[in-house]
Amino acid sequence: MLFQVEMAVTLPGDMPVETAASLKQKERDFAQDLQRQGKWRHLWRVVGQYANTSIFDVAGNAELHEILTSLPLFPYMTIKVTPLCRHPSSIHEDDQ
Amino acid sequence: MLFQVEMAVTLPGDMPVETAASLKQKERDFAQDLQRQGKWRHLWRVVGQYANTSIFDVAGNAELHEILTSLPLFPYMTIKVTPLCRHPSSIHEDDQ
Amino acid sequence: MLFQVEMAVTLPGDMPVETAASLKQKERDFAQDLQRQGKWRHLWRVVGQYANTSIFDVAGNAELHEILTSLPLFPYMTIKVTPLCRHPSSIHEDDQ
Amino acid sequence: MLFQVEMAVTLPGDMPVETAASLKQKERDFAQDLQRQGKWRHLWRVVGQYANTSIFDVAGNAELHEILTSLPLFPYMTIKVTPLCRHPSSIHEDDQ
Amino acid sequence: MLFQVEMAVTLPGDMPVETAASLKQKERDFAQDLQRQGKWRHLWRVVGQYANTSIFDVAGNAELHEILTSLPLFPYMTIKVTPLCRHPSSIHEDDQ
Amino acid sequence: MLFQVEMAVTLPGDMPVETAASLKQKERDFAQDLQRQGKWRHLWRVVGQYANTSIFDVAGNAELHEILTSLPLFPYMTIKVTPLCRHPSSIHEDDQ
Amino acid sequence: MLFQVEMAVTLPGDMPVETAASLKQKERDFAQDLQRQGKWRHLWRVVGQYANTSIFDVAGNAELHEILTSLPLFPYMTIKVTPLCRHPSSIHEDDQ
Amino acid sequence: MLFQVEMAVTLPGDMPVETAASLKQKERDFAQDLQRQGKWRHLWRVVGQYANTSIFDVAGNAELHEILTSLPLFPYMTIKVTPLCRHPSSIHEDDQ
Amino acid sequence: MLFQVEMAVTLPGDMPVETAASLKQKERDFAQDLQRQGKWRHLWRVVGQYANTSIFDVAGNAELHEILTSLPLFPYMTIKVTPLCRHPSSIHEDDQ
Amino acid sequence: MLFQVEMAVTLPGDMPVETAASLKQKERDFAQDLQRQGKWRHLWRVVGQYANTSIFDVAGNAELHEILTSLPLFPYMTIKVTPLCRHPSSIHEDDQ
Repeated sequence: MLFQVEMAVTLPGDMPVETAASLKQKERDFAQDLQRQGKWRHLWRVVGQYANTSIFDVAGNAELHEILTSLPLFPYMTIKVTPLCRHPSSIHEDDQ
Repeated sequence: MLFQVEMAVTLPGDMPVETAASLKQKERDFAQDLQRQGKWRHLWRVVGQYANTSIFDVAGNAELHEILTSLPLFPYMTIKVTPLCRHPSSIHEDDQ
Repeated sequence: MLFQVEMAVTLPGDMPVETAASLKQKERDFAQDLQRQGKWRHLWRVVGQYANTSIFDVAGNAELHEILTSLPLFPYMTIKVTPLCRHPSSIHEDDQ
Repeated sequence: MLFQVEMAVTLPGDMPVETAASLKQKERDFAQDLQRQGKWRHLWRVVGQYANTSIFDVAGNAELHEILTSLPLFPYMTIKVTPLCRHPSSIHEDDQ
Repeated sequence: MLFQVEMAVTLPGDMPVETAASLKQKERDFAQDLQRQGKWRHLWRVVGQYANTSIFDVAGNAELHEILTSLPLFPYMTIKVTPLCRHPSSIHEDDQ
Repeated sequence: MLFQVEMAVTLPGDMPVETAASLKQKERDFAQDLQRQGKWRHLWRVVGQYANTSIFDVAGNAELHEILTSLPLFPYMTIKVTPLCRHPSSIHEDDQ
Repeated sequence: MLFQVEMAVTLPGDMPVETAASLKQKERDFAQDLQRQGKWRHLWRVVGQYANTSIFDVAGNAELHEILTSLPLFPYMTIKVTPLCRHPSSIHEDDQ
Repeated sequence: MLFQVEMAVTLPGDMPVETAASLKQKERDFAQDLQRQGKWRHLWRVVGQYANTSIFDVAGNAELHEILTSLPLFPYMTIKVTPLCRHPSSIHEDDQ
Repeated sequence: MLFQVEMAVTLPGDMPVETAASLKQKERDFAQDLQRQGKWRHLWRVVGQYANTSIFDVAGNAELHEILTSLPLFPYMTIKVTPLCRHPSSIHEDDQ
Repeated sequence: MLFQVEMAVTLPGDMPVETAASLKQKERDFAQDLQRQGKWRHLWRVVGQYANTSIFDVAGNAELHEILTSLPLFPYMTIKVTPLCRHPSSIHEDDQ
């Protein structure tokens, strides 16, 4: 089941550089693991923003919530979730 | 070059049913042709809305504008365009 | 899987009274049938508005979209969909 | 009398972990007690947010205000209150 | 139980003058009857707007909804409802 | 001359409890004195918010500004002012 | 007593040219008469808009409402009213 | 050339009282000097707000920017600039 | 003197095709004439929208208003005007 | 390929003056270097704001993102990106 998720990150101005670097590394590892599992199906950077647009493919609402709130950067994120489904005009196998 | 495009459609209440049907059929043909060309890379329905979220892969701004304004339903659409680029944490070949 | 759905209805000012009455009757039948099936789990009126707040329990995004776009009043609705999941502090059996 | 209440929580970044844990535990106890009394009738998590959507069944405005402002996390909440009433198409005994 | 209700009226530009006059007269009669019953406790005009700010004193949500949707001008109104309760610093007998 | 005034209060998270208590006591004394003078004609709590809706009856804009900016909690308030006047359908002596 | 009033005008697309011309002439006469009386103290055009920013000097809220709702173009206006008072740093005799 | 400028001031909660007093005194001196030069033509307080509405008469955009960014309180201001011009219905010599 | 102007066009759905074509041709002629005069310095299409972003170089507010309200498509435009001035970091001769 | 980029800067109130001065100097050097390369084609100050409106001419989305996130003031900026393309009515060689 597909969801579009938009995440914008705002780190506190006084966060030590090493803390930020460590958080970002953990976020990357976490994101890549989920991509390998096929759950985080697409991940794009929004131009000019510390933000991404992503497509998740999960079993349902509960799994998506579990994933998003486990993100190392979750406490610093503004998140927008949009449920998607197959478009009748799509010809792509994987748009579902 | 990738763009996220969100399109919401509002047909006038007094549009004849056949006009609407004909427009939708043309829109579908147009959309599927662009998908086959690889320019309209993803097309999803937004749940509960007469709207879609799409990913376009085009040569640049001019081509995207040409495509969007050629859509048969363009006069009835509200469109939001978001430029995307590769996310450093993406492992997907096609997220670019 | 649970979704909160908020629907606000705006009928065109020039819709004949009988058309409106017929649409509302069909909407009611449709809604009650879905309630009996357990898919439209709650349905409340928003005070002072021609609008409702509802809780749907469906198999997933696709089923929810199918239901909402089949509503007789769908062409006249503004719809907001919010995916829900179990809250860790809930003690109610049916809050999931 | 029913009210839909949406609560979003934002804890200050510098709140000590134990303070946060203690507040959350108190909030949970408080919420479960009200659920047992039948006043907090439904409690759902909003997917991807530190937020909930709830249905309260109280004697009136005064009791709802008393409850909400007594929540341990109240000082950190943004709250939206929507008065509800029975929908004429509802067939559920408890949608009132 | 008190509610603040803000009503803004927009009549269609092509409504015949007599229809508008008749609707307004019915609205006035309806409003004055409710004022005499003590349910529509205050009614003020918002300066520069075809709108009012009102205070209702009703048995509960259901009665307020019944009243508002029975207003002759209801189909042409945008309505905002805010539940109120006694303020601990009020010294007025009737602020509750 | 009547004005509707909506005040929402946000105290800084690090304000000492005694400072807050003292400010609130001064605010209450100030508000009750103005109520006794007939200038702060109504004062209601907004349900679920640290906010109020009030009706002021003052000589004019200057007096209202003088009063509002003298409120002990003024530096922590977001204020919205709406000028009111008599509604032609009001039958209440004091709705003016 | 001073008020800033912002008025934006939207005439229906199908209003006959002569009706519009006649309304605008009446509006101009009305506005100039009020200016001569000293009640409409300033009147400026907003660049690029069919809108104005004005300063009214009236006895109070009731008179302002009476004036604004008597404007020939009132049914086609969106109006924003902001109460003003003397600024302590003003040195202009007429900024009050 | 005329501009309407709306300025809202938010001083940091932890600014020492003397710093604030000194800034405000400098702001007042600055504002009064510009008024004497005829560049800051009107200055009104917005009722209930730490904000003003002003009319500037300057040589052009560059001079207005120079003035606004030189205000002692500029770093604490939210500013909205609206270009104005003569209204064809104005009869006031100085509305230009 | 420079202004950024954003124009979005919405033609009524029932405007005859020839009327629209004629209006657009007049708009183009008008725009190109102003470009040749150096007053409409830049004109870009916004991707995916029936809208443009433009830079005007005019004598002042009055001339800009005169130009914008003379546009053949003005009655169908939503316009946003932003006054610009030279940026201290610009090295371009013509950014002023 | 052209993009309009609007950047608004908010420096933290407690940033040391020298840090701010150093950042601004680096920003200026960076901006001027990009202007010399032809990538930052226009740069204007927005009147009354610590903000600019700019036109970038880059190879594509990726290059624009690389540039914007490399700006020394990027962590303190709110950025809005609008893709542009040639307008059919433009006669300027460089509006593309």
